[in-house]
Amino acid sequence: MQIIHTINELNTWRKQQQIAFVPTMGNLHAGHLALVKAAKEHAEHVVVSIFVNPLQFGQGEDYSSYPRTLQEDADKLIECGVDVLFAPDVKELYPHTNQDYCVEPPALQHELCGRFRPGHFRGVATVVLKLFNIVRPDFACFGKKDYQQLAIIQGMVADLNVPVTIIPVDTGRDIDGLALSSRNGYLSPQERVIAPQLYQMLCWVRDELIAGRRDFASLQTDAMMKLNQQGWQTDYIEIRDAKTLEKANENHHDIVILAASRLSNTRLIDNLEVHI
Amino acid sequence: MQIIHTINELNTWRKQQQIAFVPTMGNLHAGHLALVKAAKEHAEHVVVSIFVNPLQFGQGEDYSSYPRTLQEDADKLIECGVDVLFAPDVKELYPHTNQDYCVEPPALQHELCGRFRPGHFRGVATVVLKLFNIVRPDFACFGKKDYQQLAIIQGMVADLNVPVTIIPVDTGRDIDGLALSSRNGYLSPQERVIAPQLYQMLCWVRDELIAGRRDFASLQTDAMMKLNQQGWQTDYIEIRDAKTLEKANENHHDIVILAASRLSNTRLIDNLEVHI
Repeated sequence: MQIIHTINELNTWRKQQQIAFVPTMGNLHAGHLALVKAAKEHAEHVVVSIFVNPLQFGQGEDYSSYPRTLQEDADKLIECGVDVLFAPDVKELYPHTNQDYCVEPPALQHELCGRFRPGHFRGVATVVLKLFNIVRPDFACFGKKDYQQLAIIQGMVADLNVPVTIIPVDTGRDIDGLALSSRNGYLSPQERVIAPQLYQMLCWVRDELIAGRRDFASLQTDAMMKLNQQGWQTDYIEIRDAKTLEKANENHHDIVILAASRLSNTRLIDNLEVHI
Repeated sequence: MQIIHTINELNTWRKQQQIAFVPTMGNLHAGHLALVKAAKEHAEHVVVSIFVNPLQFGQGEDYSSYPRTLQEDADKLIECGVDVLFAPDVKELYPHTNQDYCVEPPALQHELCGRFRPGHFRGVATVVLKLFNIVRPDFACFGKKDYQQLAIIQGMVADLNVPVTIIPVDTGRDIDGLALSSRNGYLSPQERVIAPQLYQMLCWVRDELIAGRRDFASLQTDAMMKLNQQGWQTDYIEIRDAKTLEKANENHHDIVILAASRLSNTRLIDNLEVHI
C-alpha cells in the first residue's frame, strides 16, 4: 500500500485522460473557434458543449430569445475537427424542477456584472462544474471576453480541487475593435456602427492610465459619462486588479478595465488588460 | 465528429477508471473496515482517505481533540489490502485561509443534526466534493450511521452530475447494539455501559410503529423524554421518510428514525430504518 500525502503525488498515481473542453452556449463565431483551436493545441481529443443554461439567466433577460443554431454550429465544429459535440437538452442537465445543490462563489459574484445580474455567476459556476463532471476534461478553454466569469471559474477550480487546467484565450475582435459576441446579432445596423465605441472607451482609459492618471474613481466616472453622452446606458466601467479583480489602487500594476453598457436593449461587455 | 445528447452516451464514449474510495476521518474501527470491504467488492483499486476536516466542525466542537491515529490506521488498511491511503495535511486541502467556493446544500442541511451544527453539512459536502475531485473514484462508500450525511452526498452527486456511484453500507454495531463510532472513545466506562440505550430507544420507536402507532409527533416526544429520564440530553429523535428525509406522515412507508443525544460531553448519533 502506498501512503500519499499530497494531491500532486495522487495525480501522478492516477492515469491521465487527454481531453480539452470548450463549453459554449452555441451560435458559434470566430471567438468560439479560437477556443477550439486553443483546445486542440492542449489535448488529443476535443469536446465542445452547446447548452443555453437557464440557471445563469435572470428574469427579463434573453434566455428564450438567445440564438440557437445547432446545425450551423455542428457544421463549423466538424470543419474544425472536433471529436464530440455535447448538446444536451434542459431536462438532461436539470431533470428536476430545481437545482438544489449549487456552487456558491465568494463576494466577487455580487460585483461588476453580478451587481446587475443577481445569481448569474452562481448559475455559471454550477453549470460549469456540472459540465466538467460530465465531460471530465483535462483542459478547458474560456475566453477573456467574459473576464469575471473566467476569474470565478479559475477560483472555483483551484478552491474545489477540480482536476481541470483552465486555458484563458484572448478576446476575438472584429476589424473595427468590437469584441465578438453572439449578442452582437441583436444590434441594428445603426447600432452596429457605433458599437466599437465601447472598446474605444476602454482604450481611452488605458491610454490615460499609461499617461499617468491615477485618480481611478474620477477616471471611471469620466469614461462612463463620455459613453453615455454617445447614447449608451452604462452599467459600469471599472479599473480592477487583473488577477484578483479587487478594486485597483496605486499599488496595482497589472490592471484590467472592465465595462458593461447597453445600446437600447442590447447589453455588451468588454475589457482590456494593461500593465502600468 | 459524434453529436451526443445524453450524459449516458457521453459516459460510454469516455474511458472508465475503476477505483472505489472510502473517505474517513481516521481512528478506524470495524465500521470503517466494512466500508473498505464494500469498496473492494466494487472496484479493482481501493483508495482510503484520512482527513479530519476543519470545515465541518463548529466552534466548541471536538476538532482539536478528535482522535488522530495514522500509524495504527495505516496498519489496519495494509492488512485489508488497500492500494492507496491518502492522508493530506490541512494546508494541502486548504492552502488559503478561507475556502471561498462552497457547495451549498438545500434546506435539509439546516434540519436534524444541521439544527445543532450550523455549517456542518456545507463543510461535509464541500470537502467530499474536493476529495472526489482529487481521487476521481468510480465508487465511494459511506456508512448509513451518518444517514443525513449520506442523503446530502447522494443529493449532491445526483444534482451536480458528480461521476461517482455512492455505495451505502450498513451501520456496524457492537454486540450490545451501540453503533460503532470514533466518538465512542470519549465515553467513560460507566457511560459506555448505558450508551446502548440510544439504539434501544430507536428499537422501541420502531416497535411502536410496527405495532401501528401513527402519532409521530407525540411518539417522538415520548422517546425523547424516556431517553432524557435515563440521563441523556437529547438533541432530537425524529421519524422521517427514509429516502427524502422529509417529516414522515401516514403516507410514508419507508421510514427512518434518527436520533442525536449527549452523555455529558459526548454527542452520539444513530438511526434505524423500518418499513411500515
